[in-house]
Amino acid sequence: MNIKARIKRLQDGIKKAHIDYYLIPTSDYHNSEYVCDYFKVREYFSGFTGSNGTLLVSRNDAGLWTDGRYFVQAEKELEGSGIQLFRMQEKDVPSIKEYLEQNMKDGEVLGFDGRVVTAAYAKELEKALQDKDVEFRYDIDVAGKLWKKRPPVPASGIRVLPEDVCGQSVEDKLAMLRLQMHNNSCGAHLITSLDDIMWLFNIRGNDIECNPVAFSYAFITMTECHLFVQNYAVSLELSRYAEKHGIEIRDYNEIENFLETSVYEKRILLNEKIVNCRLYGILKNKAKIYNLPNPSEKLKAIKNPTELANMEKVYLKDSVAVTKFIYWLKKNVGKIPLNEYTASMHMDELREQIDGFLDLSFPTIGAYKENAAMMHYCATETDNKELQPEGMFLVDSGGQYMGGTTDVTRTIVLGNIDDEVKRHFTAVAVGMLRLSDARFLYGCTGRNLDILARGPVWELGIDYKCGTGHGIGYILNVHEGPQNIRWKFAENTNEAVIEAGMVISNEPGVYKAGSHGIRTENVIVAKNGEKNDDGQFMYFDTLTYVPIDLEGIDVSVMQPVDIERLNAYHRKVYYKISPYLNAEEREWLKENTRPVSATVNNIQSMI
Amino acid sequence: MNIKARIKRLQDGIKKAHIDYYLIPTSDYHNSEYVCDYFKVREYFSGFTGSNGTLLVSRNDAGLWTDGRYFVQAEKELEGSGIQLFRMQEKDVPSIKEYLEQNMKDGEVLGFDGRVVTAAYAKELEKALQDKDVEFRYDIDVAGKLWKKRPPVPASGIRVLPEDVCGQSVEDKLAMLRLQMHNNSCGAHLITSLDDIMWLFNIRGNDIECNPVAFSYAFITMTECHLFVQNYAVSLELSRYAEKHGIEIRDYNEIENFLETSVYEKRILLNEKIVNCRLYGILKNKAKIYNLPNPSEKLKAIKNPTELANMEKVYLKDSVAVTKFIYWLKKNVGKIPLNEYTASMHMDELREQIDGFLDLSFPTIGAYKENAAMMHYCATETDNKELQPEGMFLVDSGGQYMGGTTDVTRTIVLGNIDDEVKRHFTAVAVGMLRLSDARFLYGCTGRNLDILARGPVWELGIDYKCGTGHGIGYILNVHEGPQNIRWKFAENTNEAVIEAGMVISNEPGVYKAGSHGIRTENVIVAKNGEKNDDGQFMYFDTLTYVPIDLEGIDVSVMQPVDIERLNAYHRKVYYKISPYLNAEEREWLKENTRPVSATVNNIQSMI
Repeated sequence: MNIKARIKRLQDGIKKAHIDYYLIPTSDYHNSEYVCDYFKVREYFSGFTGSNGTLLVSRNDAGLWTDGRYFVQAEKELEGSGIQLFRMQEKDVPSIKEYLEQNMKDGEVLGFDGRVVTAAYAKELEKALQDKDVEFRYDIDVAGKLWKKRPPVPASGIRVLPEDVCGQSVEDKLAMLRLQMHNNSCGAHLITSLDDIMWLFNIRGNDIECNPVAFSYAFITMTECHLFVQNYAVSLELSRYAEKHGIEIRDYNEIENFLETSVYEKRILLNEKIVNCRLYGILKNKAKIYNLPNPSEKLKAIKNPTELANMEKVYLKDSVAVTKFIYWLKKNVGKIPLNEYTASMHMDELREQIDGFLDLSFPTIGAYKENAAMMHYCATETDNKELQPEGMFLVDSGGQYMGGTTDVTRTIVLGNIDDEVKRHFTAVAVGMLRLSDARFLYGCTGRNLDILARGPVWELGIDYKCGTGHGIGYILNVHEGPQNIRWKFAENTNEAVIEAGMVISNEPGVYKAGSHGIRTENVIVAKNGEKNDDGQFMYFDTLTYVPIDLEGIDVSVMQPVDIERLNAYHRKVYYKISPYLNAEEREWLKENTRPVSATVNNIQSMI
Repeated sequence: MNIKARIKRLQDGIKKAHIDYYLIPTSDYHNSEYVCDYFKVREYFSGFTGSNGTLLVSRNDAGLWTDGRYFVQAEKELEGSGIQLFRMQEKDVPSIKEYLEQNMKDGEVLGFDGRVVTAAYAKELEKALQDKDVEFRYDIDVAGKLWKKRPPVPASGIRVLPEDVCGQSVEDKLAMLRLQMHNNSCGAHLITSLDDIMWLFNIRGNDIECNPVAFSYAFITMTECHLFVQNYAVSLELSRYAEKHGIEIRDYNEIENFLETSVYEKRILLNEKIVNCRLYGILKNKAKIYNLPNPSEKLKAIKNPTELANMEKVYLKDSVAVTKFIYWLKKNVGKIPLNEYTASMHMDELREQIDGFLDLSFPTIGAYKENAAMMHYCATETDNKELQPEGMFLVDSGGQYMGGTTDVTRTIVLGNIDDEVKRHFTAVAVGMLRLSDARFLYGCTGRNLDILARGPVWELGIDYKCGTGHGIGYILNVHEGPQNIRWKFAENTNEAVIEAGMVISNEPGVYKAGSHGIRTENVIVAKNGEKNDDGQFMYFDTLTYVPIDLEGIDVSVMQPVDIERLNAYHRKVYYKISPYLNAEEREWLKENTRPVSATVNNIQSMI
């Protein structure tokens, strides 16, 4: 593909539409984090394949904004395209708003497709440009129309989850939701986030790769419940289920008309950070809007006992597959031809064999040596690196199962690594285990805890330019709010108190561009511990049980308590995983979960 | 004093004034944290002597709100007064706003002295009660008028600091301030916080105990600079200095008239959280107000090189005095009659002998055994506890010197303490040293770091109900913003990024009501460390060098790195302090800063 030519075509297109700057975010009509091919407009025009990025095209220039996870990858993918890379949140790098503020002139026109931009972001843009005489056009999809052979919008059949999988009926969930609508004096609630809709109705789709969601909208009142889905997606199962539970099924494409023709007596609860500015524009003129995070966001994040029990089973099976993969890789590297892509394929195949497997939870990242410094690198069949018995191979992968969504990363040592790399590897393992072992009071958010995982890396004068952890869905999106583990305070960041039942990834790392990348990721569940006069203490349980490569560990730089954490974790790995392995694998696991101990030198230095 | 009778008098007074609820916060016209006797209206009517508390009196009831530092003390002091204690931020305890919202009825009247309530808080009260037909009266000082023999407002002479003490001229400070006024499109700036005014003009007063401030207001425009001070406080030195530097001196009591009669062309910068609602009310009708933290708050918090160099010297002298005190106490306890009060007096005397001493920075807290569980306990000549060679004595103290303000706490073991107490003592020391030894990226606030100090205490299932640290003034208030080290997210909490040059206390603790209290407090300075592609790394330097009582330390529960931190700290204590001791003291210090090491048992358990 010739990105220069595509950008030129786009620039001609915006000129013709009398637009001066045109914005292409990475989103669909639902502000989904990952989008189906139909919505990959930014990728088509820029060539940048990362999951987060915004392309801004002016009549003569083009720039792409992306975050720290993708700096290395974006540099590579944008090479020769003429598109300038803007590293978000780096010092002296303007944000898109700042860039527009600095560059747009009076009388110029800013265009974007209003269906893929949230109401909140549109408001921010308006505010940033309020002192200029700038016109906004968000009623046309200039870029989409110029995309030749644009793929269709998928409409896969929607399945209904049985109650022993969800643990809670749609009636119960609606009752919780309506209580919160009532408490906020709202008579209606518009939900456009796909995972919230799937969770609420106990349904799942398959419209976005690895995200088991169906394109849909929901409109809930105190007595009614409208579910808008694509006509082709309505299975007989769904229509019977809907009838039984009082859910009115409507056509996905009717949402605008429905909102336009409805009458609103009380105010409408919606989240301006999710609802797109076209739908928002319709409601704004007809009703009083109450802007609030969707109550379903937090309700969904606190997993119920059935969900937690199912996840425990599913994580065990998933951990067995990853353990088998590590054994297989270590045994075969240097002996059979292997590359990043074929090795990742093998990981995927092992997962596909697991009973209850539905899909991957995201495309497997298998990154060798310096490629692992790109946090979301993706090898392909044609573009990949050969694996040799040296350096490290990072595998970040997960599955969607009838019983949970998994996410796990291990960095596997394939041969010699130098002492500095070992210290990096050890710091990452120590940080991950310290966070897993945290004791904290109820009321903490991820910002209180991040330093437990990040501290050992900071001690080395290194940072990883991303959060330490994200919430994880239940047979849903692998990234889910509102909780997260991050350190940096930023405006508009959701900072959510960690509640018992929340599931969070724990994935510190070290990324050295051009050299190596290390990430060790477990998934943990927040639990209530002792409650006393000082408050409700909390801790984490671990769901992931996969060995941490001892060949990467330098015991001599570890504290005894960290050594004991590693040994205790490995004891559990062996106890839980070994029953599912064959004799040879079991022998290998025993050796590779052996207790390590401080050396004599170590002890000397301790005294 | 008979508190019941005073409350009754107040209730009669508010009835007479047709008021139903009357609010008495702990404040002066400047929202000072500590107040001079004239403003101790709440203490007079409630009998509660803590530094933070609000008394709310209705026609039949009375309630006092205070924070976690004072729960134990308030319980004791309010006993038998009929005043109900409301423990702020405890579960199910209503805030004052919530209490008023729940209890006030349509047609009722809420009263308070508008000069001792900030504009921001008055707005919050109005908002909380907006749905009720409640009248506000803040033009009268009902309580103040009922206070028989109310002390006068002090007006001590104002001194001018030489430039080798401040490190920066008033012209330079005004230039920095005006730049920020300009950047915020403001033509004027009203400052009412006393410490900001003192800092800006390089002057100091003596109007509030231990806080070297003078009652004053400042009004700054791009070309003018008005300083309002009490007439009696204007020394010849001040008036000459003012003339030389273009500062117009006006009468403190003229501020309202001045604001009323001035003409405002551009908007006025002020901090609604500091300016009282009476002054705010005057300006609101005449000018456009821009609400922002005073720029001087952050400018003042980042100490300049002269200030830091002076503080280093002053902290050394102060540390010597505390070390000598510990030696003296350990030597004499059980041999000569000693109680909390006389021991504290001795600490104060040692400090008074230090060259450059001006005042204490707060009344010395000397608390023995269970009294130390009250964070801000204050023994008196008549009400105190005898010291015996057993248990622990907590001393929290500090001085104002011509060269800095100090604050230090040590908990001194006077005799046998049990193993559990030792574990508490050790956790506190470990936490304090871990925070002092933090490596972190620029951008962190106290919320990112708090867990380093608090974590070891949390591990024991214990919390301390206060922050870990506060900013410290320079020959100014011992509590100073905007930085702090706290964990809990609360609305309206200032969360400030830690900047190089900020001085912060580091004081974790364990407080077991009825049993014991432990606090170990050093003062630390944020510094810039390595700067690389990942950002600006930071660390802390320590200012306080006083031994941590090894009799409280249980090495067997410490990690080697923590043992090494303790030993490294003690090495420095000996190196820095010993030259200022006599032979006997030096011998004692050597023994009490000796390196400790893990026992054989310890090592065994580490392997």
